[in-house]
Amino acid sequence: MKIIIADHSGFCYGVKRAIDLAVKNSNELTTYSYGDIIHNKDEINRLKSYNIEPIYSLEKLKDNSKVVIRSHGEPRKTYKYLKEKNINIIDATCPYVKRIHSLVEEYSENGFTIFLIGNKNHPEVTASMGWALGDIYVFASPEEINNFKGKADKILVLAQTTIKASLWSECEKAIKSKYDNVVFINTICSATSLRQNSTRSLAKEVDAMLIIGGKKSSNTKKLYDISLSINPNTFFYENKNEIIVQKFKNYDIIGISAGASTPKWVVDELVEKLLNESEE
Amino acid sequence: MKIIIADHSGFCYGVKRAIDLAVKNSNELTTYSYGDIIHNKDEINRLKSYNIEPIYSLEKLKDNSKVVIRSHGEPRKTYKYLKEKNINIIDATCPYVKRIHSLVEEYSENGFTIFLIGNKNHPEVTASMGWALGDIYVFASPEEINNFKGKADKILVLAQTTIKASLWSECEKAIKSKYDNVVFINTICSATSLRQNSTRSLAKEVDAMLIIGGKKSSNTKKLYDISLSINPNTFFYENKNEIIVQKFKNYDIIGISAGASTPKWVVDELVEKLLNESEE
Repeated sequence: MKIIIADHSGFCYGVKRAIDLAVKNSNELTTYSYGDIIHNKDEINRLKSYNIEPIYSLEKLKDNSKVVIRSHGEPRKTYKYLKEKNINIIDATCPYVKRIHSLVEEYSENGFTIFLIGNKNHPEVTASMGWALGDIYVFASPEEINNFKGKADKILVLAQTTIKASLWSECEKAIKSKYDNVVFINTICSATSLRQNSTRSLAKEVDAMLIIGGKKSSNTKKLYDISLSINPNTFFYENKNEIIVQKFKNYDIIGISAGASTPKWVVDELVEKLLNESEE
Repeated sequence: MKIIIADHSGFCYGVKRAIDLAVKNSNELTTYSYGDIIHNKDEINRLKSYNIEPIYSLEKLKDNSKVVIRSHGEPRKTYKYLKEKNINIIDATCPYVKRIHSLVEEYSENGFTIFLIGNKNHPEVTASMGWALGDIYVFASPEEINNFKGKADKILVLAQTTIKASLWSECEKAIKSKYDNVVFINTICSATSLRQNSTRSLAKEVDAMLIIGGKKSSNTKKLYDISLSINPNTFFYENKNEIIVQKFKNYDIIGISAGASTPKWVVDELVEKLLNESEE
């Protein structure tokens, strides 16, 4: 049996880093994460064993407690509040999101108006908005740009990291035909498209595909649909407990891909079970 | 004038992070980097102003001095040596390389033989080899795999981050037809191909393209060739001093891409010059 693990499978870099930082800084005292650090119940349970717990209101935090800022990031005012209250910050903002904060801050300081393409209710976007030193506007569609009445001398256009490439192109087109003196920096993170593309190409070259992730995870379900449309021997499992190795003995080459919220150890355990039991 | 900056332009994430870490940890005492942190003379000069200097032999370091491990990483024995000598380590190993170290360590501890596809003289590869707890072999071509006489019960196959996708596929094929019980994890970093692809697609949609980087940088030259083959109005500049803004006044939309060793501030300065002088 040969097992090929898809590139860009599992956690994106930002989420992996946030969890690693939380674990590394954990001890016998509770480490709080401001909001959920990951949407996966097995992983949340594992983190509880490190005394890592989510909190949804900063007011509950006491002097000298410690809090993880998750990968989505936070506005400047959150840092200010935490510092004033003497709360220790473990900053796990995704570096790709942090880059947006720096661009927003730096360009708005230099007199640019910021246009951010994305969903203004998403925590990543509200965090990014909180770094502007001047005007910042969020647009969710090219129509919103066309209907906008505001004026600006110089504009910097950025994207929420998880929007689709097609939305960015449409908005870019609308802005180009309406404004002059514009700098476009596409800050979409490629993790999602890379994960889907690598699942697609792996499904073509293997005898069977295993997609690993929560049954309720929409991005894992999407990987399953992509794989199944190419390879009829595609199977969807939550973890090693669901897999019957006997079923795979007739497949020589098996591909594995995992959703964005599937921990690496869940995949490792499944690979080990496959290799060990297939030898018997 | 509208300026579009290519996604994945400039420093890869690992190099950017290494420089940021070095600067963040710098003070009036010299911060050494073990080997060159970046191949760009403007950036090396800038780093000197933070007292950051390369060193090529660890023996020159004294007690309590501090050293940056650059993005390529180091073998386990380097960490051991530095700890024994009481030297402070600023670990700027690229997270994608660190992942290879963890996989090598973890799988070799579990009885796997490691096959690493890459160049055994490259510092990244010698560093990765230094994390194995059992057998590890490096192969630079499918022929080397075919000629190899070694045996192994279970094999983990990994890649140097910068090899071409085609080399990985050829080696994967050779290993598949020779060995059973193999796990393949493609650890190629996508930064180079993403940078080239985004330059290619940007060149299609703009009136003129500016490629920014050192004239001797082979990866910047490659970006120039890609862009020129698509857009005849492609120009190659080292920095803002070379550009005559007047020349670009008749272009409405200008694309910008930068090589892997081009600092962000070099691009920022050029963008500022373009926007400010084109308004006059």
